[in-house]
Amino acid sequence: MLPARLTRLVHLLSRLPGVGEKTAQRFALSMVADRELASDLSQSLHELAEFIRPCDVCGNLAEVSDSGDARCHVCLDQRRTGSLLCIVQRIQDLMAIERSGAMRGRYFVLGKLLSPLDGVGPDELPLDKLRTRIREEGVSEVILATPTSVDGEATALFLARELEALGVTVSRIASGIPHGGELEFADQITLGRAIDGRRSL
Amino acid sequence: MLPARLTRLVHLLSRLPGVGEKTAQRFALSMVADRELASDLSQSLHELAEFIRPCDVCGNLAEVSDSGDARCHVCLDQRRTGSLLCIVQRIQDLMAIERSGAMRGRYFVLGKLLSPLDGVGPDELPLDKLRTRIREEGVSEVILATPTSVDGEATALFLARELEALGVTVSRIASGIPHGGELEFADQITLGRAIDGRRSL
Repeated sequence: MLPARLTRLVHLLSRLPGVGEKTAQRFALSMVADRELASDLSQSLHELAEFIRPCDVCGNLAEVSDSGDARCHVCLDQRRTGSLLCIVQRIQDLMAIERSGAMRGRYFVLGKLLSPLDGVGPDELPLDKLRTRIREEGVSEVILATPTSVDGEATALFLARELEALGVTVSRIASGIPHGGELEFADQITLGRAIDGRRSL
Repeated sequence: MLPARLTRLVHLLSRLPGVGEKTAQRFALSMVADRELASDLSQSLHELAEFIRPCDVCGNLAEVSDSGDARCHVCLDQRRTGSLLCIVQRIQDLMAIERSGAMRGRYFVLGKLLSPLDGVGPDELPLDKLRTRIREEGVSEVILATPTSVDGEATALFLARELEALGVTVSRIASGIPHGGELEFADQITLGRAIDGRRSL
């Protein structure tokens, strides 16, 4: 019922996360009504494909410089400690840690987790790149900030074993009751971890 | 924290209906991960601005032809009755009626409703265009399918008075209990309308 070009736009928009056919159609119609938004978005997405790519060093989002390199704001920040490296699964996780302001070091974005069920084995993790960075940047401590899911824990355990051979201190982010959380409503595993991970005061 | 070009993309995406900062960021990151989607969307939005515009005749969405005209699929459909014209507020309303399959005639998209509070008076309705169409296409019946809201009802009443002078039959879509609806849960106004609008069986 829609013109073919609009049907195609609806189809593309419905590939965005959490967007179904109806929402995509609503987006498309709103952009028909707001031509300026449509052409600004077109331009912005075009630039995205051309100028935004993962940081060559850590995998965070970065803008491509005139020389063709991509360095993110964390890697460019000279005040960061090069000796502390935080390993995360996704860019979103990196951004969450940055918002907390608790990390003074640099990052390494894994991109994926070990997942036997999905056929992701150790060979698919960027281990060589990680080892090279640890050696060349003189990293002395690695914080494993992969998710506290089954795959995240397995990946953390695997990395801990691999990296200890390099003589670096390896730690895992704490798992327990969230700030302000009620013990009554915490699940068994979280409570168990909170007790196992208790700290002396 | 994000590269400037990505911040701009997030800002633009958050102008889509129902999309906040967080969702916009999620969309932007998903398009960083899926370059193909980003560049396809860029191309599609570019074409939207260039090739999609309101139908020259009725205001429905239409693709611009090689000759520079824009005619929608309803206006191009030769099997439609030219004598029956349905007036709607928005393209979305036209699409909803088309889905029902109950309309054999053509449409006229008003674009706006009378709204004294928003300063929209009779002069801002495309009355001349509507009158010309009714005369030139030999329309004999007009169905007023503006919303059943206060502004929609006021607009329908106003149009009915204006158009009756042209010698056409003017009708209003029925208002009452929706199909499958419980009387118990219907609001007072809807129930009142359902009783006022009763039909003999």
